[in-house]
Amino acid sequence: MIGREFSPHDASNLRPDDTLLNSPCDKPREACGIVAVCGHPEAAKLVYLGLYALQHRGQESAGIATLHDGKIHVHKGSGLVADVFDDAAFKRLPGHVAIGHVRYSTTGSSLEANAQPLVANYRGGGMAVAHNGNITNAALIREELEQRGAIFQSSTDTEVLIHLVAQAGTSDFNEALFMALLRLRGAYSMVILHRDQLVAVKDPRGFRPLCFGRLGDAYVIASESCALDIMNAEYLRELAPGEMLTYTGGQLQATRPFPPTEPAFCVFEYIYFSRPDSLAQSHAIYEYREGLGAQLALEHPADADVVIAVPDSSIPAAIGYAHESGIPYAMGLIRSHYVGRTFIEPDQAIRDFGARIKYNPVRSVLEGKRVVVVDDSIVRGTTSRKIVNMLRSAGAREIHMRISAPPWRNPCYFGIDTPKRERLIAATVGDVENIRQFVGCDSLGFLSLEGLLRVVPRTQQYCTACFTGYYPPGQAPVGEFDKKILE
Amino acid sequence: MIGREFSPHDASNLRPDDTLLNSPCDKPREACGIVAVCGHPEAAKLVYLGLYALQHRGQESAGIATLHDGKIHVHKGSGLVADVFDDAAFKRLPGHVAIGHVRYSTTGSSLEANAQPLVANYRGGGMAVAHNGNITNAALIREELEQRGAIFQSSTDTEVLIHLVAQAGTSDFNEALFMALLRLRGAYSMVILHRDQLVAVKDPRGFRPLCFGRLGDAYVIASESCALDIMNAEYLRELAPGEMLTYTGGQLQATRPFPPTEPAFCVFEYIYFSRPDSLAQSHAIYEYREGLGAQLALEHPADADVVIAVPDSSIPAAIGYAHESGIPYAMGLIRSHYVGRTFIEPDQAIRDFGARIKYNPVRSVLEGKRVVVVDDSIVRGTTSRKIVNMLRSAGAREIHMRISAPPWRNPCYFGIDTPKRERLIAATVGDVENIRQFVGCDSLGFLSLEGLLRVVPRTQQYCTACFTGYYPPGQAPVGEFDKKILE
Amino acid sequence: MIGREFSPHDASNLRPDDTLLNSPCDKPREACGIVAVCGHPEAAKLVYLGLYALQHRGQESAGIATLHDGKIHVHKGSGLVADVFDDAAFKRLPGHVAIGHVRYSTTGSSLEANAQPLVANYRGGGMAVAHNGNITNAALIREELEQRGAIFQSSTDTEVLIHLVAQAGTSDFNEALFMALLRLRGAYSMVILHRDQLVAVKDPRGFRPLCFGRLGDAYVIASESCALDIMNAEYLRELAPGEMLTYTGGQLQATRPFPPTEPAFCVFEYIYFSRPDSLAQSHAIYEYREGLGAQLALEHPADADVVIAVPDSSIPAAIGYAHESGIPYAMGLIRSHYVGRTFIEPDQAIRDFGARIKYNPVRSVLEGKRVVVVDDSIVRGTTSRKIVNMLRSAGAREIHMRISAPPWRNPCYFGIDTPKRERLIAATVGDVENIRQFVGCDSLGFLSLEGLLRVVPRTQQYCTACFTGYYPPGQAPVGEFDKKILE
Amino acid sequence: MIGREFSPHDASNLRPDDTLLNSPCDKPREACGIVAVCGHPEAAKLVYLGLYALQHRGQESAGIATLHDGKIHVHKGSGLVADVFDDAAFKRLPGHVAIGHVRYSTTGSSLEANAQPLVANYRGGGMAVAHNGNITNAALIREELEQRGAIFQSSTDTEVLIHLVAQAGTSDFNEALFMALLRLRGAYSMVILHRDQLVAVKDPRGFRPLCFGRLGDAYVIASESCALDIMNAEYLRELAPGEMLTYTGGQLQATRPFPPTEPAFCVFEYIYFSRPDSLAQSHAIYEYREGLGAQLALEHPADADVVIAVPDSSIPAAIGYAHESGIPYAMGLIRSHYVGRTFIEPDQAIRDFGARIKYNPVRSVLEGKRVVVVDDSIVRGTTSRKIVNMLRSAGAREIHMRISAPPWRNPCYFGIDTPKRERLIAATVGDVENIRQFVGCDSLGFLSLEGLLRVVPRTQQYCTACFTGYYPPGQAPVGEFDKKILE
Repeated sequence: MIGREFSPHDASNLRPDDTLLNSPCDKPREACGIVAVCGHPEAAKLVYLGLYALQHRGQESAGIATLHDGKIHVHKGSGLVADVFDDAAFKRLPGHVAIGHVRYSTTGSSLEANAQPLVANYRGGGMAVAHNGNITNAALIREELEQRGAIFQSSTDTEVLIHLVAQAGTSDFNEALFMALLRLRGAYSMVILHRDQLVAVKDPRGFRPLCFGRLGDAYVIASESCALDIMNAEYLRELAPGEMLTYTGGQLQATRPFPPTEPAFCVFEYIYFSRPDSLAQSHAIYEYREGLGAQLALEHPADADVVIAVPDSSIPAAIGYAHESGIPYAMGLIRSHYVGRTFIEPDQAIRDFGARIKYNPVRSVLEGKRVVVVDDSIVRGTTSRKIVNMLRSAGAREIHMRISAPPWRNPCYFGIDTPKRERLIAATVGDVENIRQFVGCDSLGFLSLEGLLRVVPRTQQYCTACFTGYYPPGQAPVGEFDKKILE
Repeated sequence: MIGREFSPHDASNLRPDDTLLNSPCDKPREACGIVAVCGHPEAAKLVYLGLYALQHRGQESAGIATLHDGKIHVHKGSGLVADVFDDAAFKRLPGHVAIGHVRYSTTGSSLEANAQPLVANYRGGGMAVAHNGNITNAALIREELEQRGAIFQSSTDTEVLIHLVAQAGTSDFNEALFMALLRLRGAYSMVILHRDQLVAVKDPRGFRPLCFGRLGDAYVIASESCALDIMNAEYLRELAPGEMLTYTGGQLQATRPFPPTEPAFCVFEYIYFSRPDSLAQSHAIYEYREGLGAQLALEHPADADVVIAVPDSSIPAAIGYAHESGIPYAMGLIRSHYVGRTFIEPDQAIRDFGARIKYNPVRSVLEGKRVVVVDDSIVRGTTSRKIVNMLRSAGAREIHMRISAPPWRNPCYFGIDTPKRERLIAATVGDVENIRQFVGCDSLGFLSLEGLLRVVPRTQQYCTACFTGYYPPGQAPVGEFDKKILE
Repeated sequence: MIGREFSPHDASNLRPDDTLLNSPCDKPREACGIVAVCGHPEAAKLVYLGLYALQHRGQESAGIATLHDGKIHVHKGSGLVADVFDDAAFKRLPGHVAIGHVRYSTTGSSLEANAQPLVANYRGGGMAVAHNGNITNAALIREELEQRGAIFQSSTDTEVLIHLVAQAGTSDFNEALFMALLRLRGAYSMVILHRDQLVAVKDPRGFRPLCFGRLGDAYVIASESCALDIMNAEYLRELAPGEMLTYTGGQLQATRPFPPTEPAFCVFEYIYFSRPDSLAQSHAIYEYREGLGAQLALEHPADADVVIAVPDSSIPAAIGYAHESGIPYAMGLIRSHYVGRTFIEPDQAIRDFGARIKYNPVRSVLEGKRVVVVDDSIVRGTTSRKIVNMLRSAGAREIHMRISAPPWRNPCYFGIDTPKRERLIAATVGDVENIRQFVGCDSLGFLSLEGLLRVVPRTQQYCTACFTGYYPPGQAPVGEFDKKILE
Repeated sequence: MIGREFSPHDASNLRPDDTLLNSPCDKPREACGIVAVCGHPEAAKLVYLGLYALQHRGQESAGIATLHDGKIHVHKGSGLVADVFDDAAFKRLPGHVAIGHVRYSTTGSSLEANAQPLVANYRGGGMAVAHNGNITNAALIREELEQRGAIFQSSTDTEVLIHLVAQAGTSDFNEALFMALLRLRGAYSMVILHRDQLVAVKDPRGFRPLCFGRLGDAYVIASESCALDIMNAEYLRELAPGEMLTYTGGQLQATRPFPPTEPAFCVFEYIYFSRPDSLAQSHAIYEYREGLGAQLALEHPADADVVIAVPDSSIPAAIGYAHESGIPYAMGLIRSHYVGRTFIEPDQAIRDFGARIKYNPVRSVLEGKRVVVVDDSIVRGTTSRKIVNMLRSAGAREIHMRISAPPWRNPCYFGIDTPKRERLIAATVGDVENIRQFVGCDSLGFLSLEGLLRVVPRTQQYCTACFTGYYPPGQAPVGEFDKKILE
């Protein structure tokens, strides 16, 4: 069933509140993950596996579209990949070329109508798009398109692209697509089906990851290399910023059609988003995360007995901190992985209950100890505060919180679901001492920007806007950005 | 979840085969039913009741859209009305103005993406449309719109209308809507939400029914009066062909903006589609159906012992036949009403099994008797044949089949789901004797066209194209019509 | 999922209120229907078909048990037959011998734990029982069994039988079963699986129907012959009171082990319960129902313009009344068959809404007319009153209600779900004039007991306790009976 | 819906194959977890939280029973705790006393009919039991009970207990319960509801854990202390072997009714089953697991570059190994936590696919390295072999597998779901060198029994039968034990 709410200028948010229960709460959230497989008889099932491996990049909806005899077939729905697809779905997804998508919403409320791949017909035929990123001038283009008589059935920025292709005034799809892409600002790593071809493209800044590999005669394109691993595909390389891959007639061809510009890869992919076993510059993200922890230990040493992580994402950094500092690493917090969709909260107030459902402290590790607790970000500060409470109740004598990233002060416009600036504790409370007081720990240290950039590969240029406020020129939206601006 | 299949020129049909199990098979099928309620605090729930009463007009999907504070809210899904809506759905459907829709597909495969009301945004704001009928030039207009760069996300003819409104080149919605409607050919009874108003409109020929009534200060508009009865609303009258009702600011206003033309009300609504308790010209359809049966008795008398109906739709005609002929009426076939969605067929061949699931003969009524069996149509002939078999096995000595309509020889383009001409037995097998032989009864009589027109109200002009092949000029599609032409 | 509530002496009733929406409310309700097939490779699927045909005898749960290699397999659940079974279920139901059950609760709340066939292991092996009827001394036997240390996991009377077999003190199953049956009072038509055999048995009074037939080499046993028809099986005959059929080694053997006693077949099966196409004494029930209507016309003629039925069950009697009286029969009430499980009621009070969801009057049949409305029973009187209201609103000038049964004054203890005496209007309000005033019709006539017995076959003796209060000696429960007495 | 298969002596196993996808396969599996809350107005919801925390002890079904006004209410079903319960379920679970259960099957196929708490009525009233453990003489007692005429509706060993209570020949429940318990051999930690009281009892050997604590005026009893933590309850202590707690009239009373015997606490709770944050002798299990890893490093050092764990259960032992050996710990395998119920496997053979869905190696940690991989058990050896393959493909130069337990050679009869001896690689292949060859690693070391017993608390005596074959006298079943022996 479909439930949507439409309004030209605004819409109340139908998404349930962010809570500790159903989301990696109080964490930045990746917008999406995408996968494509071309030239394989089981294309849809392989895309499914790839989406499964990318599930951490989006848990609200999943979808797959395939190409078969020039027609596009699609199946999508709300929920986890393993819940949306069943055998019957795959019967309706024939073809050797397939694309897939998992999402959190960045633009568009998280409703089923906005699930991707987005599919539409225009005079050139059918077209399907799966998009990771955020087009920052989508509202402007949409207004312009509406002035020219276009109608919109979703509130995703991706629908804008299909309109631009349809109105491009040329019957050559590739030309029309390129003309449309030239209009877009912001971040897009995309895979697109049309007639007998698949196109993968990364925006000229290269904000979001996109890599490709080979599986026998087939090709696989995915947001992260872990999606290739699950299929046993061979990793070839990351797409360059502005690079476009075109698969047609069994051949994959790479071009770089955009004028060169300064790259701006999202540095947060190293810190938090990407899976630790995914590759960046042919090294696993894991290694860089350990490096961030080690750097953090150099910058913010602590006189402590034990190093623990806020599981799971901060474990590599905590191990790195432990190795560098010589303080032993231990599991001080256990994380539950059974949090389900329908978890019923107790009526009575149990202190720190939300956090307690997800984490439980290990008293024997903590009792009477001076504890370094490593996390990879502080967003609103409320979860950190609950964790500090929980550690103290379990007997921790001192709590030294160490964050393997600089303070997060600015919203991201390029594909990450972040709260408004007013809710970012580092933007409002300001200095580290004030944050420390709010969180309630004994000391607090953030990794420096210099430290961060020392660890991550130098072969690349980064977008660090969330820390620095420096947005790559021309890419940030004009005026205040609201992810539901298109509704 | 949404599963769609897209293709510019064609698409394989995803609908399960027509079977006796899940549909009033081997019967013409009504396209849709629509309801609107304006000016009532429980508008969505009343529309729900209305859709429930109109369930016979479409069982594949149901949907409701409401207007609240200038925004459109919508909930729709596959299945019966009582299955698609629950309490949670109504919480998301606030507002005093609501429209609703139940459907079989006429254009567009019967997939969830094509469920109505269709909702979209354009520069004038949000718009929701529920449509009963069939726009016969939709493919041509769509091609033209695609040439101008439009994209299509459904395969319904209704999407065309929204595009036409969006491209009308005027910011006055009512003007834009009227300009758009002028472009349409074929059949449409529609209800439309936009900003703060509701519009109901019937095409100038008036193919499909649409009536309205009053419930306290509120107004109700519906395909049939039975939808008003269930709400206890007072019936006012049928809309005239080409009439438009506009509800805004608590007032309902009627206009007749179209140039006058010859009306062509679907005569099959009298024969089969409408519920017998619905009104036509302020008389219940029931009465006319009895009249058809009586006329049939005059035209095709039979020397018989008992008159039976193929239940449920043919019962009034059978009663009429019995009264006129003086032959007693009895229930010779019992119909089961528990046929569910997931009925499992036995693997082994049981003769006439499909019919047996739905009907069971009453031996004591039939044994040794000369039986008149009244039905309201023969489409492919296969079900009639099974019924004749079944009656013979139950001991009927003679079987005289009487059909309360003329032979159906031509496809309907105006909102009824009919097979292609090649599958209409009256179009292929041709004369009545040949049909009789196929069906296997002892005699067979169809109501004459003259007889039909003698019974139905003379105050109106009818479309009889399915019997005569005479399509109202300019309304039939150019070239071969295929209900999936838009996919 | 299973939800149960247990308590030794009492339990709140978890069943939703009787409403017009989900049940043939304000009607007596049959307890159950049973089917068995033996000697057929698709035994489970045939039983499924049979249950489907018996769906009118119970809509709360359905179940099938099969015998395969000496083991019993079972699948059961809440809901309609077509909803409980799917392909996967049949894969788990192998074997050539199968029994099945549909139920309303008579004893035992209508919960999934009480769904039948009831299956248990005892020292003799596995045993499965499907039971239609009501054992009136079950509570006494249960108490005795509990005193001897038995435990009970359901609140059905059927569990008592399995305990009696298990404790019979003989290893011969047939002997044990017979000894157990001798302990039982009340009504039971049962089919039982054990090791390599199937037993069907009807209690010595023969309260509830049970017939059998042949399908090729296989045998079919069922509550009504309509279950044989749907399989295309040949009807052989009704089991005699106290008759037992035993199927083993491919042979079906009939015995009459009980001492002879006076039969007491439920006369209400003729009036209301059985499907009109089922056979009684090799004539269809339909014929007797027409006869009841004709007799009613003789006893309670009316000066009227039209005869209508409360559909569907009263249609044959109304036709009989019409034929006898010469007053034309017409459809004055249309019944909706789409009432679903989750129907949402409107918040606002709409007068007679509940009835309106199920029935709609046909104004043109009723307006200005003197109407005879035939129904087959008045239980609490509330529905009759709503119907009378509805007919008056539709313009009926006079309303003459005719009931094709005597007034129902006494609870049934033998397998029919009846309200307590306090809720039977004929038991409380008493005389017919008072009932007429409550119901609001212009005249009211009940069929006389003599009239009833004149119509039904004289070859049989009947239980008429619901009308007369004369319960077959020794069969009624001692003390006040409560259908949840076993919880 | 309920689907069961019954047979006196045998039954085919309906459980899906153990696969990597849906279970911590190739691992021993805990039978069950139990929780009780007494004296709290939200007893059912607190039990729900407790079951949630114990989800690792059983994921096949979940259930809660409450006591309210002397009646027992129950809700149970297949699946995870968060899937089985919703708001409606809690409305049907009133009362201040509640017990709950999560299960894997040990005896009884994993079918819904066997879900616990098991509820039955006997002459003393209603009784509900939730049981962790395995009664080794259940089949014998059952045979004896069946000889005396008892019937069985489940295939759980727990049903035996209820029968024994029912047949105890005394009306004093506590006396009857104690007499019944005296008949049982094997392992049981149980919570029981009856009339107005709750009883918790641990068998005299104390095989399985059971602890209790306080939450305000209420008491909480649970398999592990992590269930107390999630409710914020205060841990009091572990029950002694043979200890019984009785809650009635707001008071909790402890007794030790059994004659003293030699305790035999399951040592595998330390190695694998219990959550690392649960307490044993008031120290977290985590600490002992680190200790096992450290001991393993002493016994089986390796000349290696990195220590990795098979996540998640072996992480503490790997950290302990790393600390003791000085070799750095790293995350060499990433585990996915999104494995869902309906995961669709690809049709084509992908090498080691099953393992790949669950684990992905981190190439940069492994490439060119000599790797110590720590796991906590080898059952069949197949998963270890896949992991070794995976590590080699990711570039590991040497693989030294270290197991933080002795070789597992004997089946457990006391509540753990283990394969038959023939499938235990350590029982069949025999010596460590042969296992090493099968697994394919470069070296393999198991912790010694002495080492194990050196690490775990000396204050207790252990059951080590799985390693030693020494079963506590009189507790192992006579003859070959089969967990489906009762079907």
